[in-house]
Amino acid sequence: MKIALTQLNYCIGNFDANVEKIIQSAIKAKEEEAGLVVFSELAVSGYFPSDCLIFSDFMANCQHALDVIAEKCYDIPVLVGCPLPNEGEGKPLKNCAVFLYQGQRRVFAKQRIGNNPLCDERAYFESEKGNEMLECGGLKMAVTIGDDLANCSADPLLIENRVDNLMALHPDLILNLSASPFDYTIPRRRCDLLRQTVLKHELPLLYVNQVGANTHLIFDGGSMAFASNGHIDTALPFFEESIKIVDTDTLFNYRTADDRLVIPEKMTLIHDALVLGVRDYFQKMGFKSAVVGLSGGLDSALVTYFAVQAVGAENVRVVLMPSQFSTDHSVSDAEALALKLGVRYDTVPIKPMYDSFLDSLNPIFEGRPFDVTEENLQARIRGVILMAVSNKFGNILLNTSNKSEAAVGYGTLYGDMCGGLSVIGDVYKSEAYELARYINRFEEIIPWHTINKAPSAELRPDQKDSDSLPEYDILDGILFQYIECSKSPEEIIAMGFDAATVNRTVRMVNRNEFKRQQVAPILRVSPRAFGAERVIPIVAKM
Amino acid sequence: MKIALTQLNYCIGNFDANVEKIIQSAIKAKEEEAGLVVFSELAVSGYFPSDCLIFSDFMANCQHALDVIAEKCYDIPVLVGCPLPNEGEGKPLKNCAVFLYQGQRRVFAKQRIGNNPLCDERAYFESEKGNEMLECGGLKMAVTIGDDLANCSADPLLIENRVDNLMALHPDLILNLSASPFDYTIPRRRCDLLRQTVLKHELPLLYVNQVGANTHLIFDGGSMAFASNGHIDTALPFFEESIKIVDTDTLFNYRTADDRLVIPEKMTLIHDALVLGVRDYFQKMGFKSAVVGLSGGLDSALVTYFAVQAVGAENVRVVLMPSQFSTDHSVSDAEALALKLGVRYDTVPIKPMYDSFLDSLNPIFEGRPFDVTEENLQARIRGVILMAVSNKFGNILLNTSNKSEAAVGYGTLYGDMCGGLSVIGDVYKSEAYELARYINRFEEIIPWHTINKAPSAELRPDQKDSDSLPEYDILDGILFQYIECSKSPEEIIAMGFDAATVNRTVRMVNRNEFKRQQVAPILRVSPRAFGAERVIPIVAKM
Repeated sequence: MKIALTQLNYCIGNFDANVEKIIQSAIKAKEEEAGLVVFSELAVSGYFPSDCLIFSDFMANCQHALDVIAEKCYDIPVLVGCPLPNEGEGKPLKNCAVFLYQGQRRVFAKQRIGNNPLCDERAYFESEKGNEMLECGGLKMAVTIGDDLANCSADPLLIENRVDNLMALHPDLILNLSASPFDYTIPRRRCDLLRQTVLKHELPLLYVNQVGANTHLIFDGGSMAFASNGHIDTALPFFEESIKIVDTDTLFNYRTADDRLVIPEKMTLIHDALVLGVRDYFQKMGFKSAVVGLSGGLDSALVTYFAVQAVGAENVRVVLMPSQFSTDHSVSDAEALALKLGVRYDTVPIKPMYDSFLDSLNPIFEGRPFDVTEENLQARIRGVILMAVSNKFGNILLNTSNKSEAAVGYGTLYGDMCGGLSVIGDVYKSEAYELARYINRFEEIIPWHTINKAPSAELRPDQKDSDSLPEYDILDGILFQYIECSKSPEEIIAMGFDAATVNRTVRMVNRNEFKRQQVAPILRVSPRAFGAERVIPIVAKM
Repeated sequence: MKIALTQLNYCIGNFDANVEKIIQSAIKAKEEEAGLVVFSELAVSGYFPSDCLIFSDFMANCQHALDVIAEKCYDIPVLVGCPLPNEGEGKPLKNCAVFLYQGQRRVFAKQRIGNNPLCDERAYFESEKGNEMLECGGLKMAVTIGDDLANCSADPLLIENRVDNLMALHPDLILNLSASPFDYTIPRRRCDLLRQTVLKHELPLLYVNQVGANTHLIFDGGSMAFASNGHIDTALPFFEESIKIVDTDTLFNYRTADDRLVIPEKMTLIHDALVLGVRDYFQKMGFKSAVVGLSGGLDSALVTYFAVQAVGAENVRVVLMPSQFSTDHSVSDAEALALKLGVRYDTVPIKPMYDSFLDSLNPIFEGRPFDVTEENLQARIRGVILMAVSNKFGNILLNTSNKSEAAVGYGTLYGDMCGGLSVIGDVYKSEAYELARYINRFEEIIPWHTINKAPSAELRPDQKDSDSLPEYDILDGILFQYIECSKSPEEIIAMGFDAATVNRTVRMVNRNEFKRQQVAPILRVSPRAFGAERVIPIVAKM
């Protein structure tokens, strides 16, 4: 039989749009002779709805959406993810895959309910206890959802892996409806995990993931069909909607050892994820246009580039806000980028406002010397200007902080930390350089001078980032061990990093937790992003 | 025997301070002839450490702390909460009560591991399966931790209530080590829940809670000892450290029907919680002094009052920042409060900066009319001034937003929404009035004129909050149903609220989720606080 893998981009709570998309895709798949159309986890509601699930109208909308799909796709067998009430004891809902066909409705619910910090399913969903099989088109299918396929030995809630149990019913193939948040390590890990299941049971496996970004969480798609010999017969693209029809006969008798999946390199993945992340934020929020404060440095250049990729040059404007401490090349590099990308730019020197604040504050400051106050003042005046442009014209301000800065607090709260969305806040500075070189791989888009000059905040004369921070390659090495790998300072020092630098870096990270808890959502591309995970109490002594 | 209930204020990760406090309290209790000294849940580390628990040095510090306590309290039987490694399968840790006495060490671990959004214990802790009894001073004690005593029928992880199981071992009394986040409904609910357990089993129950605030979460103490007839023999105070010795003989033969517990009224609870919340934030962060922008309105008056209660008038300064739209009474009301409270005040009119921004932005704005841009500009200039004072003198800026404003987005991001801690962000405007009247119950501290005048943001001529918002008693009624009770708009309308007003209010709440995700930690005093819980995806359509 033919099965359609339907990889779509859903908006949480936008039932009309989600249902329309599901129906149109089902009709199209039927035209291509699909005998079953499979959608991703919680497709009807969008993943992950969090506390939207508490509201009775939200759940009523889910039920109504299923009714509409059942009616409009009466003659098309569809299997679609949807939250439904739990009729039994425990949490109020179940995370379901619903089979709809000619008035039949069969419900399969998720067993392995996760409580990872990105999507706290356990707060809402009861785990399914039973095991049943979907029979469709003469085949018996083991229906699994998301982590049902994951190794669950560390989970107190589950005694056995669901698929192991389902095998007792002798399925012909395994289906998995998923919604798996992206990070740059996921495509490879996911492929390996799924392949293990295939090889263990020698059954074909059809995996359908959602695509698209919901605020900070990005979903990469990458749905695929494994033949029973463990090779990938069909791979859907990353970061875009797609429907592909799989012929199950092929999966049982796969004739080549080829994998029809190419996992892109890390920088390609991050690049494409960020473009999708920005684009979906604007589209799902109903925003049209963006504004960026362009300094001539690397970070704001990258963010402007991503804004242009996501919403088009005609919808992006940038503001140059030089001060007395700005170098000539800052302005010329910024102008070069704006011209290259074709975005409108305005220049607003900050000196008049800066002088005005200093005059007004002078009676209070009583002749105290220039310090971080005046540095922050410049950054905050820029924030006010950008937000004024944003308010006046409806352009959403994009934040330009990178992960290294966010980690050590090298940014001004309510200044350069302003913005509705943090585009590269999960990208270390050393990765930002890689990303810029990736963007420039065919032609100079970001001025090479921007990439090659020493980074500086330009908030005091001749300032360099390296005046107050370790060199970025060392800093990022330490941060990666501390943030992503949760190593203690002692463990990091034992790896060969300088003890004083490690201790100083870790102190900066912990002292600046308060700043990270007041920033915009950060597009998540790493296995451990600020905001999305890594919950550290602000008052904790670390 | 005599048992000491030891209700202390711990700082997360400050092992030296926590251990010192535990040892000194144990010694003091021993002097008063206690045969057992009971501390609260995770006392050694402070509750709740979240991702601190991932770090090996943090866990090594926990082990070391136990060693020090065991040594220094060698002859004192203590029972103290501490996270420890899980030797078996599953999550890496257990949430333990450790009995230490003369070289013995017995570990009792928590069974009912919660995953409430305030403290996601399930991310770290494995549930205890076994049941054992502590024997001490000739008595058999059922040791329980936190939610072990809660009704657990809704929990998939647990089949039976732990205490029911422990009863098979015939304990003489029940101990509960707890760390229960405060809201104004908790003291009554907690008392009722514990009393149910006592009456069910006809056993005395000794309950030890922690006190103190850790960032946004406040712990109210209120530890107590129930006699076996369900009456409260001993009650420790709310919102302060305390040690009380309970004679268990009395608990078995309680002669009166009196409850020695008086639960304060809602406004007393909220008042005392906020004072403690501000005080502990400053103390645990190592901050000395505060700054508040004083407008002459109710919210900033309340926050200034709390700052003074928490850190002393000599450590609080306020800044008055009138504009051309400020009324005379705003300035005079603000001055009156500053004089009454004895805090330093400075006046910085914002007109020079406002004019300077408008001049610089004029070429971009191209003669467009006054709109929300210019309103926000005023608020943001005030934010910049306050942060400059904060940076120059080290005074921490306190945020003055209330819960009604935060709900409907009636505040300027990076303007009046600035600050390191939100003091009354979990207090609805109508509750803010109650709180002000409570503060003024003996004498006029907050000017009655501030309380009685119509609220206004004063960002355009003759502006009133009621120009853009429903009257606060109606608004707050709708918000309470939507936020605290999670009722759908239809359900709220069915309660008798005007349909258009409900729909408009709900739209405002949902449209402004992005603002709430960029604010300071909000001291939590209600059962549903922004920031701490109520997780709504920003891009969700609601």
